[in-house]
Amino acid sequence: MESVEGNNSAVKVAFIHDANKLSREEERHENVDENNSDRFAITQYIGETDTHSDALITRYAHTLTNYSLRNLGYPINQDFNYEALAPLLQFHLNNAGDPFLGSGLSLNSMKFEVSVLDWFAKLWEIEKNEYWGYVTTGGTEGNLHGILVGREQLPDGILYTSEDSHYSIFKIARMYRMQCVKVASLISGEIDCAQLETSLLANKNKPAIINLNIGTTLKGGIDDLDLVIKTIDKCGFTNDQFYIHCDGALFGIMLPFMKQALRISFKKPIGSVTISGHKFLGCPSPCGVLITRLKYINALSRDVDYIASRDATITGSRCGHAPVFLWYALKKKGLTGLENEVHNCIFKARYLLNQLRRAGIGAMLNEYSNIVVFERPLDDNFTRKWTLASNKNIAHVVVMKHVTIEMLDTFVREFVQERYVWYKDGQVQPLCIAKDVGSRNCACSIHKLSSNY
Amino acid sequence: MESVEGNNSAVKVAFIHDANKLSREEERHENVDENNSDRFAITQYIGETDTHSDALITRYAHTLTNYSLRNLGYPINQDFNYEALAPLLQFHLNNAGDPFLGSGLSLNSMKFEVSVLDWFAKLWEIEKNEYWGYVTTGGTEGNLHGILVGREQLPDGILYTSEDSHYSIFKIARMYRMQCVKVASLISGEIDCAQLETSLLANKNKPAIINLNIGTTLKGGIDDLDLVIKTIDKCGFTNDQFYIHCDGALFGIMLPFMKQALRISFKKPIGSVTISGHKFLGCPSPCGVLITRLKYINALSRDVDYIASRDATITGSRCGHAPVFLWYALKKKGLTGLENEVHNCIFKARYLLNQLRRAGIGAMLNEYSNIVVFERPLDDNFTRKWTLASNKNIAHVVVMKHVTIEMLDTFVREFVQERYVWYKDGQVQPLCIAKDVGSRNCACSIHKLSSNY
Repeated sequence: MESVEGNNSAVKVAFIHDANKLSREEERHENVDENNSDRFAITQYIGETDTHSDALITRYAHTLTNYSLRNLGYPINQDFNYEALAPLLQFHLNNAGDPFLGSGLSLNSMKFEVSVLDWFAKLWEIEKNEYWGYVTTGGTEGNLHGILVGREQLPDGILYTSEDSHYSIFKIARMYRMQCVKVASLISGEIDCAQLETSLLANKNKPAIINLNIGTTLKGGIDDLDLVIKTIDKCGFTNDQFYIHCDGALFGIMLPFMKQALRISFKKPIGSVTISGHKFLGCPSPCGVLITRLKYINALSRDVDYIASRDATITGSRCGHAPVFLWYALKKKGLTGLENEVHNCIFKARYLLNQLRRAGIGAMLNEYSNIVVFERPLDDNFTRKWTLASNKNIAHVVVMKHVTIEMLDTFVREFVQERYVWYKDGQVQPLCIAKDVGSRNCACSIHKLSSNY
Repeated sequence: MESVEGNNSAVKVAFIHDANKLSREEERHENVDENNSDRFAITQYIGETDTHSDALITRYAHTLTNYSLRNLGYPINQDFNYEALAPLLQFHLNNAGDPFLGSGLSLNSMKFEVSVLDWFAKLWEIEKNEYWGYVTTGGTEGNLHGILVGREQLPDGILYTSEDSHYSIFKIARMYRMQCVKVASLISGEIDCAQLETSLLANKNKPAIINLNIGTTLKGGIDDLDLVIKTIDKCGFTNDQFYIHCDGALFGIMLPFMKQALRISFKKPIGSVTISGHKFLGCPSPCGVLITRLKYINALSRDVDYIASRDATITGSRCGHAPVFLWYALKKKGLTGLENEVHNCIFKARYLLNQLRRAGIGAMLNEYSNIVVFERPLDDNFTRKWTLASNKNIAHVVVMKHVTIEMLDTFVREFVQERYVWYKDGQVQPLCIAKDVGSRNCACSIHKLSSNY
């Protein structure tokens, strides 16, 4: 084969020059979480061909197995099995373009994608000929899209969202150069509609784009969609003066399986709903689903001759494997399977709440939620060991499918043991977290954890 | 196990109600590309648990194998082997947060990510303590990030980009509410610096944020970074009045291996570079790499207690498998392997150019490019059969690693045969594409394809 430039490109010479400095990347990692710094040799210089990579991957997989056994704090279901999809990984699958129009890139999974979208459209009660959507790279892209649709509908709209919203919402407001009003939350984490009313009335001259958390990241508070709609109405906003985006990251797929829970439905005046696919369903990579009303999409779409499709997405080229993962999960679980998983997670969350409170640890669990909030462990090593997520005075466990009663028992037992050390056998009192979880859920010396729960 | 709501949730009843309408999704697919509509039963209703899914996936994989043998038009390397990474697919890996700071989510691959980033930082000549970056979900996210960094540096900046830019650039300008000036391109596809100069001088009162195509999607034209810098300088913009983002989707990793080619380097006054990981390197899912200057990132970063990290990315939760794929590809190929692949693609592209021109078909190939541009086939079935990408009068083949000489020979032979039919044995003349590829590359009755190339 002809070589165009010969074998001595400048870049190669530059790389070879450094080839013996195998440990130079070590310095870079000084700040990396110590608990996470198993020294597999990935920091080794990537230069000439390497034959040890496969062995290193095996070690890495082993490390991950250990981590996954103590993964309590993030809403990511680690219990899935996509072995049957392994043959697809030899292909690059790319769903660039509009899933409903197909694409010039024949290696796509748009039919799986549309099948998944139809399923969610049904879940959230919108007719097939009235909705549009796509499988996203995750919850943030769903929020990026929903809020963009809202802004394009109402270019002068102010974005309202509670202080408990996911960090992506405030980032998006800045990216999109939108005025953003942060509304106070209730103890549960849900948006305070009295505060929302005050804010809406103070800005009546501008349309409202409202992000609702279904539910909030830290506490699992569920913004009361029905009360929000009433509040908007009460403030005198007509249907063409507001847009509601529902960030349903985790609960968006759970609530429909609980009869008394808030109903997310396009029969109500909402503009878009998004969930994360890797959260409740479980998926190797982050992904999500965004559903909106078809009528809004023409304003966003652009014909793209190059991909023989239209583009109304945020990321353009999109992972073609994610829709197949989601399709497969929905197929395999079935509605009964999903329903059982939802109730099982809620059951285990209530179990954890009870165990914590019996042990005298302040804790809170919202209704229809699998997120148990409690006092932040005093030792960050403990937090890291159990991969807890925390914020200021509180931490949480999100009871996902992979979390077993045994894991929870071990966690509570260790937590209790550690607390004896942190609180010096009762000589030091736990932090007061009444402001975060309510006085009846606080175990400090003043509030003493009400048994009336 | 206790069931919280019993077995009759409203959603289940609603789904069951429709469970017999197995073919209802068929209607939806009427618009889907016919060539892409192999009727595997994925459009079947997803409702109750299904046992045929595995067999269907096997059929789907078979269909994809057929497609991949005729995949000429998109810059996606389908020749990769990540079998050794299969064990990782049993984990959800999530790199939410700043790769250099680690994250509370222990199931991440941030060390692989930093290793990959360091490699690219070296490629594009920026010191480790001076750069920041991350592995993105693809080229569009890289552009979203680079242009956002530019806008945050220069809030009043006007975005300049050539008319041949990827469709994402114009979408981003709209998302970010930036004024965008579309600059004319030369025949090669590269930005016309005379036009750029005129545009810059007409807007001297505002800073300039310039997107450069390395190279363009359709023609593989490479914007002349050095000439652009000279033009900016000539127009009197000082270093704090402009920001250059390089969209290096495909060529960003190829050019460094060709000695005479344009050098992308942070030693020049550029702000960010991005490439797509799935393009030249090959990867099952879209991904990319973004490198920018560390000094810009503090303005974008927000501490996020919840993930025990900082966030300066677009998508937040990010695929943890992609960095391992990229790391593995770089390790396995090595610099010599990459260099050989680059030269081999360029060699095959020149071969295709010659074969087309010998057959009397108008065609163009830029220097340092593997994108062969030619007259658009008159029959869209032929375009679809070979998965060509096209735009107005022209189409292209991107000669990637998986494209063999045999594929190219078959393609040219079939193209020639079809042309006899389309052009009625010479009674009808081919379209004039001189405006698109230059008169010496056009085979119409006037220009007659110069042999002097």
